[in-house]
Amino acid sequence: MNEFEDLGFCKLDVGRNERTGHPEVVFGQGKTVDQVETIFSRLVEIHGRALVTRATAEMAERVITRYPEARYEEGSRLISLGQSARKLPGKVAVLTGGTSDIPVAEEAAGTAEWMGCEVDRIFDVGVAGIDRLLSQKDRIREASVVIGVAGMEGALVSVVGGLVRRPVIAVPTSVGYGANLQGITTLLAMMTSCAAGVTVVNIDNGFGAGFQAAMILQLVAEGA
Amino acid sequence: MNEFEDLGFCKLDVGRNERTGHPEVVFGQGKTVDQVETIFSRLVEIHGRALVTRATAEMAERVITRYPEARYEEGSRLISLGQSARKLPGKVAVLTGGTSDIPVAEEAAGTAEWMGCEVDRIFDVGVAGIDRLLSQKDRIREASVVIGVAGMEGALVSVVGGLVRRPVIAVPTSVGYGANLQGITTLLAMMTSCAAGVTVVNIDNGFGAGFQAAMILQLVAEGA
Amino acid sequence: MNEFEDLGFCKLDVGRNERTGHPEVVFGQGKTVDQVETIFSRLVEIHGRALVTRATAEMAERVITRYPEARYEEGSRLISLGQSARKLPGKVAVLTGGTSDIPVAEEAAGTAEWMGCEVDRIFDVGVAGIDRLLSQKDRIREASVVIGVAGMEGALVSVVGGLVRRPVIAVPTSVGYGANLQGITTLLAMMTSCAAGVTVVNIDNGFGAGFQAAMILQLVAEGA
Amino acid sequence: MNEFEDLGFCKLDVGRNERTGHPEVVFGQGKTVDQVETIFSRLVEIHGRALVTRATAEMAERVITRYPEARYEEGSRLISLGQSARKLPGKVAVLTGGTSDIPVAEEAAGTAEWMGCEVDRIFDVGVAGIDRLLSQKDRIREASVVIGVAGMEGALVSVVGGLVRRPVIAVPTSVGYGANLQGITTLLAMMTSCAAGVTVVNIDNGFGAGFQAAMILQLVAEGA
Amino acid sequence: MNEFEDLGFCKLDVGRNERTGHPEVVFGQGKTVDQVETIFSRLVEIHGRALVTRATAEMAERVITRYPEARYEEGSRLISLGQSARKLPGKVAVLTGGTSDIPVAEEAAGTAEWMGCEVDRIFDVGVAGIDRLLSQKDRIREASVVIGVAGMEGALVSVVGGLVRRPVIAVPTSVGYGANLQGITTLLAMMTSCAAGVTVVNIDNGFGAGFQAAMILQLVAEGA
Amino acid sequence: MNEFEDLGFCKLDVGRNERTGHPEVVFGQGKTVDQVETIFSRLVEIHGRALVTRATAEMAERVITRYPEARYEEGSRLISLGQSARKLPGKVAVLTGGTSDIPVAEEAAGTAEWMGCEVDRIFDVGVAGIDRLLSQKDRIREASVVIGVAGMEGALVSVVGGLVRRPVIAVPTSVGYGANLQGITTLLAMMTSCAAGVTVVNIDNGFGAGFQAAMILQLVAEGA
Amino acid sequence: MNEFEDLGFCKLDVGRNERTGHPEVVFGQGKTVDQVETIFSRLVEIHGRALVTRATAEMAERVITRYPEARYEEGSRLISLGQSARKLPGKVAVLTGGTSDIPVAEEAAGTAEWMGCEVDRIFDVGVAGIDRLLSQKDRIREASVVIGVAGMEGALVSVVGGLVRRPVIAVPTSVGYGANLQGITTLLAMMTSCAAGVTVVNIDNGFGAGFQAAMILQLVAEGA
Amino acid sequence: MNEFEDLGFCKLDVGRNERTGHPEVVFGQGKTVDQVETIFSRLVEIHGRALVTRATAEMAERVITRYPEARYEEGSRLISLGQSARKLPGKVAVLTGGTSDIPVAEEAAGTAEWMGCEVDRIFDVGVAGIDRLLSQKDRIREASVVIGVAGMEGALVSVVGGLVRRPVIAVPTSVGYGANLQGITTLLAMMTSCAAGVTVVNIDNGFGAGFQAAMILQLVAEGA
Repeated sequence: MNEFEDLGFCKLDVGRNERTGHPEVVFGQGKTVDQVETIFSRLVEIHGRALVTRATAEMAERVITRYPEARYEEGSRLISLGQSARKLPGKVAVLTGGTSDIPVAEEAAGTAEWMGCEVDRIFDVGVAGIDRLLSQKDRIREASVVIGVAGMEGALVSVVGGLVRRPVIAVPTSVGYGANLQGITTLLAMMTSCAAGVTVVNIDNGFGAGFQAAMILQLVAEGA
Repeated sequence: MNEFEDLGFCKLDVGRNERTGHPEVVFGQGKTVDQVETIFSRLVEIHGRALVTRATAEMAERVITRYPEARYEEGSRLISLGQSARKLPGKVAVLTGGTSDIPVAEEAAGTAEWMGCEVDRIFDVGVAGIDRLLSQKDRIREASVVIGVAGMEGALVSVVGGLVRRPVIAVPTSVGYGANLQGITTLLAMMTSCAAGVTVVNIDNGFGAGFQAAMILQLVAEGA
Repeated sequence: MNEFEDLGFCKLDVGRNERTGHPEVVFGQGKTVDQVETIFSRLVEIHGRALVTRATAEMAERVITRYPEARYEEGSRLISLGQSARKLPGKVAVLTGGTSDIPVAEEAAGTAEWMGCEVDRIFDVGVAGIDRLLSQKDRIREASVVIGVAGMEGALVSVVGGLVRRPVIAVPTSVGYGANLQGITTLLAMMTSCAAGVTVVNIDNGFGAGFQAAMILQLVAEGA
Repeated sequence: MNEFEDLGFCKLDVGRNERTGHPEVVFGQGKTVDQVETIFSRLVEIHGRALVTRATAEMAERVITRYPEARYEEGSRLISLGQSARKLPGKVAVLTGGTSDIPVAEEAAGTAEWMGCEVDRIFDVGVAGIDRLLSQKDRIREASVVIGVAGMEGALVSVVGGLVRRPVIAVPTSVGYGANLQGITTLLAMMTSCAAGVTVVNIDNGFGAGFQAAMILQLVAEGA
Repeated sequence: MNEFEDLGFCKLDVGRNERTGHPEVVFGQGKTVDQVETIFSRLVEIHGRALVTRATAEMAERVITRYPEARYEEGSRLISLGQSARKLPGKVAVLTGGTSDIPVAEEAAGTAEWMGCEVDRIFDVGVAGIDRLLSQKDRIREASVVIGVAGMEGALVSVVGGLVRRPVIAVPTSVGYGANLQGITTLLAMMTSCAAGVTVVNIDNGFGAGFQAAMILQLVAEGA
Repeated sequence: MNEFEDLGFCKLDVGRNERTGHPEVVFGQGKTVDQVETIFSRLVEIHGRALVTRATAEMAERVITRYPEARYEEGSRLISLGQSARKLPGKVAVLTGGTSDIPVAEEAAGTAEWMGCEVDRIFDVGVAGIDRLLSQKDRIREASVVIGVAGMEGALVSVVGGLVRRPVIAVPTSVGYGANLQGITTLLAMMTSCAAGVTVVNIDNGFGAGFQAAMILQLVAEGA
Repeated sequence: MNEFEDLGFCKLDVGRNERTGHPEVVFGQGKTVDQVETIFSRLVEIHGRALVTRATAEMAERVITRYPEARYEEGSRLISLGQSARKLPGKVAVLTGGTSDIPVAEEAAGTAEWMGCEVDRIFDVGVAGIDRLLSQKDRIREASVVIGVAGMEGALVSVVGGLVRRPVIAVPTSVGYGANLQGITTLLAMMTSCAAGVTVVNIDNGFGAGFQAAMILQLVAEGA
Repeated sequence: MNEFEDLGFCKLDVGRNERTGHPEVVFGQGKTVDQVETIFSRLVEIHGRALVTRATAEMAERVITRYPEARYEEGSRLISLGQSARKLPGKVAVLTGGTSDIPVAEEAAGTAEWMGCEVDRIFDVGVAGIDRLLSQKDRIREASVVIGVAGMEGALVSVVGGLVRRPVIAVPTSVGYGANLQGITTLLAMMTSCAAGVTVVNIDNGFGAGFQAAMILQLVAEGA
C-alpha cells in the first residue's frame, strides 16, 4: 500500500496506521470546513475511525451532518468517530491544577480514550492547597502514566514527579496573566522542574500528551 | 540634620536611619575597594554599624584590616559590623528549595539578623520530595514571616503560600540551566504563582527579602 | 473538618479559612458563570462571606440575583459579600502613578477592605510631577503598609521606597504602550528598583498586593 | 523508614528508591566537592549505588579516591557506581543529529544504563543528509523508546516521530550559535514539532530523557 | 527619467523598473483604499502592470472596478494586473509543510509568476511523514530555485536543503501555537538550520521569497 | 501658585507651564471620556490652551461640543485648542520612511506646532529608494531639528544621522510584521544605529519627539 | 574635497567635519590596535584632533607613544587629543543615579567637552533618596541640556524630566543584575517613562548622549 | 556509491558532492582536534579538497602539519585545501558596513572562492556616511550576487537592496552592544527590511551566505 494519498490541498498519510498503530489525527486549526470534511471522510473510509483536534463548532456540525455517530465535545474541541479496537492495559491519570485547565485536560483524555486507553480524571488539585493533591496520592500512584495539566507556574508536575514511579507528561496551559506570558512561563518552568522523569509538550497541547501516554501503553501491550 | 553627605563619588544618605529605621546598606557590586572602604568607615562613624552586600573578598580584607570586628561570610558575600540595637519580635523562616540556593538564603538571613531579626534556617525542602517540606510544616508555621529561596521552577513558594497565615516573600535564584534563563523563568513563575499572599524580589536578591521581612517585624514592634 | 470539598469541577479549599485566616478567594477569569455561582454560594454557606476577583458583569448579575447584598464594582471587577469580622489595626495606603492605574488600585483596596483593613487612597501621584507625591509624604508615612500601583517605568515605588519605614508592595500595571510590553517592562523595572524593601506582585495583580498587606496587618493584630 | 535524612546542608531523599524504583540522583552543578562526596557516600551506604550528573573532574577525583570502583566519563560528566540489579526489557535508541551532540547523548545513555536499560547509540544522523537517518530506520524501529538529541533547529525528532510507533523523547542541545539562542530556539522548535508523540526535556538534559526512558521500560517490566 | 514621482502621501519609485527589472510592488497593509487605488493606477499608467501584496477585499473591489482585468486571489491576498513580458528560464518549486501554509505559498507563487517565472506547487510535504517529501524528490530536483514554506519547527527546509544542488529560500509561517510564538520560533529555527545554502525571509513573507527567486532566474536569463 | 490641583481622579500639574514652558499634555489612552473632558476644561480655563494625545473620536466629539474651536485630527488622534503664543525659531523637519508612518508623524508635527514650532513634512523617503531621500537633502539640512519616523528596520535615521549637523530624534513605528515584533525590532535597531547624534523615543511616540524638538527650539529662543 | 579616504580596511569619513561640525569619532571596540593607530593618526593630520571611544589600555599606550599630548581616561575609556576650537554656549549637566554609573557618565562628559561644551557633573542623585536630587534642583535647572545616566529601573530621568524646561537625554546603564537583563530593562523603562521630553540612547552609550547634547548647543551657537 | 561513510563519531556525507556539487563542509565548532583531522583527511582522500569553518588555530596546526598545502586564515577561521575545479561565472560582491565586520565577510568570501567564485571585496561602506556606499554603486551593480555583512541596525542591506537588480544576501553580525543583543536585533531588522529581494542567514554566518551565492552562480553555469 502507498504511504500517502494526494487530495490536492493535502497528502493524507494513509500509511501512518500501519507505521504507528493509529490513523493520522487531523489538526483542525488553520484548515477550512471543506478541507476538514474531506479529510475526515477519507479517514473514516480507510480506517473506520477519525479524530480532529482544535475543531470549531462549524466543522463539527458539518461532519456530524454526514456522520451522525461522530461526537463533538465543546470544551476539548475534539471531533471523534470510533476508537481503537484494542483496549490498552493500565490507566492514564489526567490531573489539572485548576478548573480553567479542564478543557486542555479533556483534549488529553479524549485523545487517549480514542486510542484505547482508560482514563482517570483528577481535577483541581493545584499545589496551593497541597492536601487536595496528597489526598489523591494513592489514586495517582495506581496510574501507569500521569498527565499533569497546569497553568501559572506549573508546580503541580514538580510535586507529582516526586510522588510516582511512572512517567509524568506535563502540559503547560495558557491559564494565567501578566508574567505568565500566555503560557510561555509555565512551559519554561515545567522544563526546568526540580523533579526527574518529567517531559513536556507544547502549551495547551493536550493531544500531544494523550498521544504519548497511549504510545507508552501500546508499548506495554505489545511488549518491549 | 542634613539628609545626605557628599563624598564626591557618592552622596551618602545619612538621613536614612531616621527615615527608615536603618542606615543605608552598601551595594558592593560595581564599586571600587576604595569606595567601599570610604563609605563603610563613614557609616560606622555615624551609625556605629554597617552592612555591605555583594562584597568581594578583596573588599572584605580591606575593611577588616581597618575594622577587625567586622565579619565577612563568603557564601552570602556580606560584610557586616554591629547590628541593630533593638531585637525585633517573632522569627523569620528562611527556606531553600535546594543546596545550591543556600548562599542567597544566607544573604537574606544575614541581612535580617543585622536588622535585629531572629532567623530560622530550613534548607533543602524542595517540592520534588514533598515530605521534606511537610515534615517542617509546624516549624514554618511558627514563623512570623517566611522567605522562600528557590531556583528552577520555584514551586516551593506556591506550596508554602498555601500552608501559612503569614506573609511569604519569594526569592528566585539563578540556580538551573537552559530553560531557566539565569533565573528569569523562576522569577516569572513565582510571579504567576497560584498561591495568594506571595510577593517577589529580584533574582538572587536575598538582601531585599531579608530587608522586607525586617520591615514587617519592625512594624509589629512599633505597632501599626 | 476536611481540608477541601469536591464540587466535581473543583475542589473547594474549605480549610483555608482556618489555615490562613481567610476563605479561599475565587479567581473569576477562565471560569463559567455557573461555576462562579456554585463556588460563591458554597463559600457564603460555609464562611458567611466571599470574594470573586476578575469577575465579569454577567457573573456579577447572576450572583447578585441570588445574593442581593453582594456588591459588584466595575472598575476593580470585584464581587464581594460580607467582610472580615475582625478590623485589622493600622492603615494601608494605596497609591497610583496615574489615573489609568485606578482600577487595579481599587482591586487592591477592595481586597484589603474585605479582609478587614482600613485603606487610604492616594491617586495620581506619579513622579513626573514630583511635588504631587511629596505633598502627600506625611499621609503616606502614616500608613502601616504602602501599595504602589504604577504602569510605564514604575518609578513611583522607587521614590516611595526611600521615603518610608514601612513595607512597600509594588503592583506593575499594563498601562503604557510599545516598549512597555504590556507591563513586563514595568514588572522588571520594579524588580530592579534602586530602593530597598520593595517587593513585587504580578502585572495588574491588585488582589495579591491587597492580600499581602492584610496578611501583614493580621500579623500585627495577632502578634509576631 | 523515614522518607529523608538530614545532612545539614541537604535533606537526602532516602525514600525515593522505594517510591520511584531508583535512588535519588545527585545534580552536581552548584554543589561543592565536599557536599558531593558526602551525599555520594551516604547513597552508596544506603542503596549500594549512586549517580552524579554534571560532575566536575575534581568531584570525580575525590569520589574515585574513596570508591575506586566508581567511574567517571568526561564527555557525559557522569560519576556512577553500580547500577540497577534489575535488567529492564527492550532497548533505548539514543540518536544524535551531529557529532557535537554526543556528550549530551552519553548523559542520556549512561543514565538509562545505570537504571538497567540496554542502549543502542546511533550518532550523527541529522536530517541534512536524510539518507543517513533512513539507513538506520529498521534499527530505530526496533527500539522500545527513542531519545533524539539534537541542536540547531532540532528537525531530527520531527522526522523520527513520524517513523516509529514508540515514544520519542527530544533533548534540545545548546549546539549552534546566533539565532540558536543557546538552545532556546531548539527547545521551542522541538515543542512545536509537526510530529505527534514527541515530548521534550530541558536543554542539554540528557539525564531527564534517560530517566524517563527507564521509567517507561520499568512500567513495561512491572506491567501497567 | 526622474527616479521617483511625488504623490503627496508617497513618493512613487518610478525608476525601480529600470534599476531592478520590475516596477515597485505595493505593500497594501497600513495603506488606505484610496492610497492603494492611486498608486495602482499610476503604476499601470507607467509600467502597464502592477502588483499589490497584503491587499484587503475592499482594496481589490475598488481596483477591479477601475481595472476589470485585474485579479484578486483571496488566499494570497494579491491584486495583480499584467505580468512581466519576459518569460524567465527554469522553474521555481514552491513547497509547503502543511495545508495551512498554502496561502503564504500562493503569495510566493503569485509574485514569482507575475515576475515571469514558471512555478511548480508541491504542497503538504512536511517531514512528519517523510515519504511524502521523498516521493517528490525528483520533481524538486528539477527546479532551479526551491522555496520552502513551513510553520511549526520548519524542519522541511533542513531536509530539502540537503537534497538539492540549487538555492533554497525558506519562508517561516505563523502556523502553530504556544511555543511557536507566532512564527518567531520557526524563523529562528530556519536560521539555525543544519543545512547549508538556505536563506530566510520574514515570517509569512511569501512575496520576498518569490521576488528573490525571480531575481535569481533573471540573473540566469541575463547571464552573470 | 500651588504646583497641582486635585480633581479627585487626578492631580492636575498646573505648575508645569511655569516649570517647563508648556501646560501638561493629556495622555488620552486609558482615560474615560468624562475624565478627558474635565481635565481639558480645567486646562483651558487655566492656560487658555490644551492638547490631548491618543484621543478617541468619542472624546473629540465631547470636547468639541463644549469647545467648538477645538480641532481633532483623526490620523494623529490629537485634540488641540490654541497653541503657544510664542513662535519658536527655526524649523522642525518631520520625515517618514513610508506612507503608513504618516499618522505617527502627524502626532509629532501637531505637537510641535501646538508648542510654537514651524514644521516641514517630508514623507515617504525610506532608504530602499535612496534617491527619494537624497533629493531632499538640502531641505532636510535647512531644518534645526530632524524627526525621523520609520517602521521596519528603521534605517532612515541612520542615513539621515550622517547627513546633518543637527539633532536627530528617531521615532520607531509599529509598522511591519513578523520579525518586526510590533515595533520592538525597529526600536532596538534605531538604538543601535551606526549614526551618532541620534536619540530615540518609544514606539509610535510622535508626541515625545515633537515635544523634545520644541524643547530644543525653546532653548534656542531663550538662549543657553 | 572628497567625502572619504580609503585606508583599505576602512573608508575614513573625512567630509564629516564639514557636514556635521565635528570629525568622525572612532569606535574602538572590535578594531585592532594597528587599525586604531592608523585612523587616529590620519584624523589628527587632517583635523588636528581626534577622539576614540571604548578604547583599551593597549590602544591608548600605542597612541600616546606617538602623540604624547593625547590623554586616556580609564573609567570612560576615551582617548582624546585636542578639542573643538569653538566653545559652545550654555552648560551640559551630567547626572548619575549611583556611583557605578560614573564611567558611562564620564564618557558622556568627555565627549561633550571634546566637542566644546562646558559640563557640570552631578553624581549619585538616584531617587531612592529623593532629597539628594531635590537639593540639586537649581543647579540642574541652570543647565541647557541634561543627561541622565542611570541603571536599574532608570527612575532618575522620569523625575528630572518633570523638573526642567530643557531637553533631557537618558542613558541606560548595564548596572544592575537579574531582572535588569544587562540594561535592557533600564532601556525599555526609560523609553516608557511617564515624563515628556526625554529621549534615550543605547545602553552605556555615554558618547551618544554627549554628542547629541553638543549638537543641541551647536544649534544654539549657530542659531536655528 | 554509498551516500555516507561511518567514522564512528560521525557519518560522513560522501554523496553530497554528487548531490549538490560540493563536498560536505566541516563545521569545526564543537568538534575535537582529532575529529577535525580525521574528517578532513577522509574528505581530501575522497574529493581532493576540503573546507573547515570556525576552526581554531590548534585545529589548523594539526591539519597543516599533515597537509602542508592547506591554508588557515585567522580572521575568517577557515582551513581550506584545494578548491572547485570549475570557475563559476560572474562575480560576488562582499560588502561590509564597518571594519569590525571584516572577519565574517572573509568567511563568506573564502567560502565562495573555494567553491569557484570570483569575489570583489568592498569594505566599510556603512550608511552613516552614505557617500562611501554611493561611490561604489557601479562596482556593486556589476556583481551577480551581493552579500551585505553588517552589524548594528543592518541598514546597509536595505539601501543596497534598492540599488541593484541582483539577489542580495544579508549576513547580520554580532558587532554592536546593548540593544544590539549580540546580533539578534540586526538579524530581526534585516528580516523586516524595507527592501525587496533580500534574504538573510544566521548571525555571523558568512559561510552560509558564501555558499548560497555559489549555489546561485552554479545555477547560472549549469543553466536553469
